[in-house]
Amino acid sequence: MHIGILTGGGDCPGLNAVIRAVTLALINECGARVTGIERGFLGLVERQVRPLDAAAVSGILAQGGTILGTHNRCDPFHYFGENGADVSLRTVAFACELELDALVVIGGDGTMAIADRLGRLGLPVVGVPKTIDNDLYLTDRTFGFDSAVAVVAESLDRLETTARSHGRVMIAETMGRYAGWIALEAGIAGGADVILIPELPYRIEVVAALCQQRQSQPGHTLICIAEGAHPVDAGQVVARRLADSPDPIRLGGVGALLAQQLQPFLESEVRTTLLGHVQRGGSPTAFDRVLATQFGWEAAQLVKQGRFGRMVALQGATCTSVPISEVAGRNRLVPAEHDLLQAARSLGVSLGS
Amino acid sequence: MHIGILTGGGDCPGLNAVIRAVTLALINECGARVTGIERGFLGLVERQVRPLDAAAVSGILAQGGTILGTHNRCDPFHYFGENGADVSLRTVAFACELELDALVVIGGDGTMAIADRLGRLGLPVVGVPKTIDNDLYLTDRTFGFDSAVAVVAESLDRLETTARSHGRVMIAETMGRYAGWIALEAGIAGGADVILIPELPYRIEVVAALCQQRQSQPGHTLICIAEGAHPVDAGQVVARRLADSPDPIRLGGVGALLAQQLQPFLESEVRTTLLGHVQRGGSPTAFDRVLATQFGWEAAQLVKQGRFGRMVALQGATCTSVPISEVAGRNRLVPAEHDLLQAARSLGVSLGS
Amino acid sequence: MHIGILTGGGDCPGLNAVIRAVTLALINECGARVTGIERGFLGLVERQVRPLDAAAVSGILAQGGTILGTHNRCDPFHYFGENGADVSLRTVAFACELELDALVVIGGDGTMAIADRLGRLGLPVVGVPKTIDNDLYLTDRTFGFDSAVAVVAESLDRLETTARSHGRVMIAETMGRYAGWIALEAGIAGGADVILIPELPYRIEVVAALCQQRQSQPGHTLICIAEGAHPVDAGQVVARRLADSPDPIRLGGVGALLAQQLQPFLESEVRTTLLGHVQRGGSPTAFDRVLATQFGWEAAQLVKQGRFGRMVALQGATCTSVPISEVAGRNRLVPAEHDLLQAARSLGVSLGS
Amino acid sequence: MHIGILTGGGDCPGLNAVIRAVTLALINECGARVTGIERGFLGLVERQVRPLDAAAVSGILAQGGTILGTHNRCDPFHYFGENGADVSLRTVAFACELELDALVVIGGDGTMAIADRLGRLGLPVVGVPKTIDNDLYLTDRTFGFDSAVAVVAESLDRLETTARSHGRVMIAETMGRYAGWIALEAGIAGGADVILIPELPYRIEVVAALCQQRQSQPGHTLICIAEGAHPVDAGQVVARRLADSPDPIRLGGVGALLAQQLQPFLESEVRTTLLGHVQRGGSPTAFDRVLATQFGWEAAQLVKQGRFGRMVALQGATCTSVPISEVAGRNRLVPAEHDLLQAARSLGVSLGS
Repeated sequence: MHIGILTGGGDCPGLNAVIRAVTLALINECGARVTGIERGFLGLVERQVRPLDAAAVSGILAQGGTILGTHNRCDPFHYFGENGADVSLRTVAFACELELDALVVIGGDGTMAIADRLGRLGLPVVGVPKTIDNDLYLTDRTFGFDSAVAVVAESLDRLETTARSHGRVMIAETMGRYAGWIALEAGIAGGADVILIPELPYRIEVVAALCQQRQSQPGHTLICIAEGAHPVDAGQVVARRLADSPDPIRLGGVGALLAQQLQPFLESEVRTTLLGHVQRGGSPTAFDRVLATQFGWEAAQLVKQGRFGRMVALQGATCTSVPISEVAGRNRLVPAEHDLLQAARSLGVSLGS
Repeated sequence: MHIGILTGGGDCPGLNAVIRAVTLALINECGARVTGIERGFLGLVERQVRPLDAAAVSGILAQGGTILGTHNRCDPFHYFGENGADVSLRTVAFACELELDALVVIGGDGTMAIADRLGRLGLPVVGVPKTIDNDLYLTDRTFGFDSAVAVVAESLDRLETTARSHGRVMIAETMGRYAGWIALEAGIAGGADVILIPELPYRIEVVAALCQQRQSQPGHTLICIAEGAHPVDAGQVVARRLADSPDPIRLGGVGALLAQQLQPFLESEVRTTLLGHVQRGGSPTAFDRVLATQFGWEAAQLVKQGRFGRMVALQGATCTSVPISEVAGRNRLVPAEHDLLQAARSLGVSLGS
Repeated sequence: MHIGILTGGGDCPGLNAVIRAVTLALINECGARVTGIERGFLGLVERQVRPLDAAAVSGILAQGGTILGTHNRCDPFHYFGENGADVSLRTVAFACELELDALVVIGGDGTMAIADRLGRLGLPVVGVPKTIDNDLYLTDRTFGFDSAVAVVAESLDRLETTARSHGRVMIAETMGRYAGWIALEAGIAGGADVILIPELPYRIEVVAALCQQRQSQPGHTLICIAEGAHPVDAGQVVARRLADSPDPIRLGGVGALLAQQLQPFLESEVRTTLLGHVQRGGSPTAFDRVLATQFGWEAAQLVKQGRFGRMVALQGATCTSVPISEVAGRNRLVPAEHDLLQAARSLGVSLGS
Repeated sequence: MHIGILTGGGDCPGLNAVIRAVTLALINECGARVTGIERGFLGLVERQVRPLDAAAVSGILAQGGTILGTHNRCDPFHYFGENGADVSLRTVAFACELELDALVVIGGDGTMAIADRLGRLGLPVVGVPKTIDNDLYLTDRTFGFDSAVAVVAESLDRLETTARSHGRVMIAETMGRYAGWIALEAGIAGGADVILIPELPYRIEVVAALCQQRQSQPGHTLICIAEGAHPVDAGQVVARRLADSPDPIRLGGVGALLAQQLQPFLESEVRTTLLGHVQRGGSPTAFDRVLATQFGWEAAQLVKQGRFGRMVALQGATCTSVPISEVAGRNRLVPAEHDLLQAARSLGVSLGS
């Protein structure tokens, strides 16, 4: 048995733990040969691979990023290297040439969409969900998310001391273009006074009023805003910014925008920190190492059982699998009546509306 | 409405986050008056209470331990302060005197057993599960566990560098008297080569053989052992040690015992670290802060709805509740066929048998 | 004896450790009464004070920020609250009214300049140096610096994994408007490939050439740039930006500027993270807690001995004191022949020129 | 030019940073060939070496331990592998055979003593001081110490929350067989109420009295004790224990002994945590990475300048060098009148006498 593995899309803490678990499980359970595809689908297109064995995955469990490399923009159906040409058949042919019995694809919704299409071309694929934003459809939690929340919560702990010492309004902008999971969980963990997420457009007057009330005591205010959050009625504008954004990962700037909007309402200083790429790098938390290991092992079971076209998923406390086709291109947003939103409101956190 | 809160048993990261969430939710949603009972049930027996309001719970979210204090051994049905006398009626009378409409009890199985009995005497109780060991019945995960796993995994990361530099066998002994959850998850997260848990008695020859094989390369070996782990056929001995242990929290010493057993098989040095109380103290992880906040809010909902005699529980990804009577005195062990055990074996981790 | 304490300028990890040490040492050694002045010199101007005793400083050792609050812009010689009026005499009069025998002033060069002038008006002052940037004259190291370097180094560790996984150039912008100590030490600690500091204007061609060479392998590049760093011949421009900057703490943007300059030279993606306020908040490192405690104790000795007009200083491994007048308004820059610069160059780190 | 490097004695965070700096500096500045000797002097005796180049030292800066391995007990003048025979000449002969122009030896006082004797046999040696305990003669601070203090201080932060919640006396036993630097600095950083070090024998009545006073409020007490600390008049006993200790690194047990001594004086529970090997493993702090890099670079300068028989040293803020012969076998203890001791006493910390 010969199995390929690739990691697609943005990097994420826990990718290496998945690679290690898939590799060791396939070698130990099936005596498989394992090959790593380098730099996401680019390695399939440009024929860059390397063998993976126990020695190659030794010591990578706790390392951030991916030893295989990744690429944000490589789609074999619109290959950027050849003016958007469809090189998918060539890609599948290369997999055949390698005599791959299966390809384990670790990635987000974009990567799953490509995996799904390659699967329809006959490539036996198994998916492992990866999204720092925790917004993949049909899986309750993905590795990397806990690490990102931990980094943001620690940053909020730090910013809080400055806010308190100076009597300021401090804004922290987190990742989360479409879904507010990171801002919501980290905001609760970091004791934010205001949490703004894409799913709940905010009213600047509401946020300003809360800040005014808190600052008057005198006091300080901690705001956690997801990069995709936006004021009510600004949906069009934001959609355009999203479409225009040169960086597929980072939109940026909504924290600074909010600061500009808030400052006229307040005498206190308003300051912004854009947390940026530190949210996605570094060693995974223990939680993410366990979850990633479990996902990797589960992917190996799917390969072993020949259950192709499926993606590993966590539903409740159970590791299971779902058809990749049902996941591709769909997001899991924070539902308006989510328990954590209700809890936040009940604890006095403003959600901006 | 007047609500009491107490924390019982050993301390645990996240207790303060629960206290804060219960207090704020009850004040904000019901305009309740909230009273903290000090030092667990001892405060009810010895009439030590203090008012809790928004100011009192401000800034405690990220603090370890419990601002209310706790006590390991106070059981109103066998009060240690009066030669084991039953002072439960006096205790309930004091709650009546305080005109408590409900008592929120945060604690483990021992505390829940007492809460259950006080409930039968007419005290309206709501339970919030607390166990670092993650071994409470009917709830999949409790706050404090993630923090403990994080501390242990970080310690394993540290010990691994020493093991590798010296070519040693390093043993880390973790908490987990009856259930091996901490050793299992932290062992996987920390890349342990051997994981020994109470549920799976080990054979010393099996562990020694793995060590011999690893050390011969030359190499090093990392062993993670729960304090309740024991060799096959030593059940009686261990049960006696458990019964005799002066410390209700820490058994201790199985790591040192294992080192003694292993050393004769090996030329390499074998060293043990007993991780001890650092596993249960300190600021909770972001995960635990969120979970504890959710549990606290859920407890407030139960109080609000008058659903007494119930304990908050996490089942899958859902926060729900179960009858306290079903939980009291029962443990949730690692099932022999648990996915993580299978994954560990598949990755080449020895489970000692 | 009655002593006042205030913290001025931006907040900094370790301020509370100083407040605690000064307070406890004066109470225990001299039976002094201690009063905290709130929000820096603003408390002296606006008559906001509070008593400090052992209970008030209990548990603050490990807390970031300052329990007394601080203010960036309050200068009694140009009081912003009264159109820049000189209210210094009123300020000194208030100190007399409080019957202060001495005022311990914890702050940076701006704060020391004010303390020096108040001293000349007859107020007995003792200074404690505070600067995250580590650029105070006549003291080798100040508390807060180690904490900032630790935060930046950890961020570089995180960014490195993303840079490596994507084959990118990652730029981290640190604090350091005039002096590059943070970028230099954190850059070395975080294994940066390029370190750019204000003291050494960089040539974009030099930086670009190094990036090109590294990226061609293929590889990745990690750049650590201080907010005051600037290209050769851009001194005028930068000086103007500094003068115009609305935020007395953060200049910001040189990382983004560098990214724009570099991108045309490179096929690889170039990304920037502006580390921002997280560098100055949060719990101090153990090193900073010890240093701050030592500084606080030393300040108490100066008060006890009546050695006013002096500032605590660390010279080599020795805690000593220097005249405040010699420190005020002067910066300690990284010398061109500093050992760490030579070491960095020798290890292959580009300093941009 | 061909240079050898070895690491001797116990492992320590920062060893890899030294290896990296020495290697890169010698390659970049002198075009040297660099060879790593494996497992300390054992590699010289047993002829185990490996080449070191830029690739070999890439990515090791932040890794704990030593990539070269180390050995606690190998002394070529009394080689354990051949019944204590003197194999020093064979060792020097092997260095000649390798055509080493110099040997960089990284280690503590034992390792320096061996290096000194090998130097007298004609081997050109340069020393780099390594001691977690910070007790090497003639150098103010060594890498690894800051990391150990950080681990201990964080552990004290954790233990404090448990002590406070339960109203207990918590004892943390740290490394420090002869010198109390770790216990002293970490104790101050972690806010310990009692700090016991080898240099200041304690009186159990004094410690007990302080505990009684603190516990009566009711309160809690945090004690930080170095493994070499001992009661007054127990010098003989302790000396014997030191001589008999099977583990050259860990004495162990003085915390447990203290707990036994204290318990009869107190109603509160007394608990001990022996911090153990976690103090010496893991990624170095930023401070230690910088110091280790500086030491490595300085060692390369000594080699380059042909200044053999010297050891790198930090004196004040200056990196310099001293004769190895003056260092060998001598310890730097905490002086009775050290500033930190005075500061600790002044802040109300008991030193046990």
